[in-house]
Amino acid sequence: MRVPLDGLPERVTVYEVGPRDGLQNEKSIVPVDVKAEFITRLADAGLTTIEATSFVHPKWVPQLADAEELLGVLPRSPLNRYPVLVPNERGLDRALANGVTEIAIFGSATETFAKRNLNRTIDESLAMFEPVVRRARAEGLWVRAYVSMVCGDPWEGDVPLAQVASVARRLMDLGCSALSLGDTIGVGTPGQVTALIGEVVGAGIPLDRIGVHFHDTYGQALANTLAALRAGVTVVDASAGGLGGCPYAESATGNLATEDLVWMLDGLGVQTGVDVRKLAETSLWMADRLGRPSPSRVVQALAPKE
Amino acid sequence: MRVPLDGLPERVTVYEVGPRDGLQNEKSIVPVDVKAEFITRLADAGLTTIEATSFVHPKWVPQLADAEELLGVLPRSPLNRYPVLVPNERGLDRALANGVTEIAIFGSATETFAKRNLNRTIDESLAMFEPVVRRARAEGLWVRAYVSMVCGDPWEGDVPLAQVASVARRLMDLGCSALSLGDTIGVGTPGQVTALIGEVVGAGIPLDRIGVHFHDTYGQALANTLAALRAGVTVVDASAGGLGGCPYAESATGNLATEDLVWMLDGLGVQTGVDVRKLAETSLWMADRLGRPSPSRVVQALAPKE
Repeated sequence: MRVPLDGLPERVTVYEVGPRDGLQNEKSIVPVDVKAEFITRLADAGLTTIEATSFVHPKWVPQLADAEELLGVLPRSPLNRYPVLVPNERGLDRALANGVTEIAIFGSATETFAKRNLNRTIDESLAMFEPVVRRARAEGLWVRAYVSMVCGDPWEGDVPLAQVASVARRLMDLGCSALSLGDTIGVGTPGQVTALIGEVVGAGIPLDRIGVHFHDTYGQALANTLAALRAGVTVVDASAGGLGGCPYAESATGNLATEDLVWMLDGLGVQTGVDVRKLAETSLWMADRLGRPSPSRVVQALAPKE
Repeated sequence: MRVPLDGLPERVTVYEVGPRDGLQNEKSIVPVDVKAEFITRLADAGLTTIEATSFVHPKWVPQLADAEELLGVLPRSPLNRYPVLVPNERGLDRALANGVTEIAIFGSATETFAKRNLNRTIDESLAMFEPVVRRARAEGLWVRAYVSMVCGDPWEGDVPLAQVASVARRLMDLGCSALSLGDTIGVGTPGQVTALIGEVVGAGIPLDRIGVHFHDTYGQALANTLAALRAGVTVVDASAGGLGGCPYAESATGNLATEDLVWMLDGLGVQTGVDVRKLAETSLWMADRLGRPSPSRVVQALAPKE
């Protein structure tokens, strides 16, 4: 039954991260033709923005070592946006050489995670991003900045809202086009999310530049998304089939499943353009390729029963 | 980080259904001493209201055939409420003979499910409940009425809100003390939940008599709970460890996991009296007894890593 709720946006852009954030966290390495078919099927299900791959060094992310090859075989359409993660200037060179028009960079709200993930302080990481963003913008690229650990950090614990807003502000000041605020460890709850959006908006960043990225590690992703939508956010990251988060694996990242998100938005009458059944079929197909069931509840519920 | 959200209640009563609704949907039959220890540990974790078992005929629910024996060995305390499900007058006789002070009856918002689950029309089921409720109330018992299929029915599809409110009203008119509105198949979304609560309140039923019971079949349970809390509901059903819903089993009922609920309420600063870590330990212990992992995300996240 479709019943709207006051205070929600009419339309939400689902930013699909499965092919990049999902597959880079899977144990198995997926062949390039399967990746290309996966992305094509996601687009066919109505997803318009699909983060396709990453130009991180293959030593760190062997799962996405085929980035150039994938971009070479991926059918392009003016209807679809395929952003690519770029860690540094070398990555930007590769992106530009391969005709990429949108990139994403990956920053941290905390010093400890910046150190562990980027081997830099926050200041040093922003200094590293500066020429990437400047050159990318000069070339006409759209630049998205991920801000990770916005609701908590495994080493630092609580992360002050003002600290997140400050990093967000500095990334926008570098020239980034938009942000994705990520609760990387999934500990946040709806009040914190509401307050965080308020703090970032208070730092002068317009709502239409703020995306959210929730992990379902503690089961909070969809409730947090609802809070973010009520706070005026209209861009939500999600991973088809919950890719990247095997529920019983140590490595669980627990990305919010796109199907679970779209089921809620469909019920609320919020438009996404995504066909949830077609998407679930794609995730079942991908689960077969990966040899394990999808952790998405909707994918499980819609799967043909034996 | 504890950050409140406007419009939420200060305190929520978690109505724990694991020992009854959970275990009756598990394949294995749990020994009575394990059940008694389970309930004792749940109470020790701070749960004050725990539906302990059912007086449904053992032919239908062999998992709970030991109801009398369990009630005989369960330590009683004035701090704890142990309601028992009672299907009919014979069940009420057994409840009264065993010193039960709170019962629950199980009604349906749809004709098809009434027929399939109770082998009666809605009218006939209310006629069956009438003497149960009358006698129970005369004996001073608290009577809770479950209303199932409130957001959708597998055979009938959408269920009109007015139909749910009408069944709810008739159950209260029989003399029931309180309601639990159940989205048995988990298809509902937050707008529908908000509208449903409004409709039931509009039928003259006070908010403090309305509980909600969500299933996570489509991943919506916690987002729906948040909507219900904003609508003023303060009683929420949940199942420790998500018992009763094995994520990859056909039989999945997908009860909202108590831990996932309490994690959210803790983060929102809503008091429950429940210690989420103690509760998760209990669910891990119970998962060992059942020989399968808990589907609760919080239980998985808090489990000791190997």
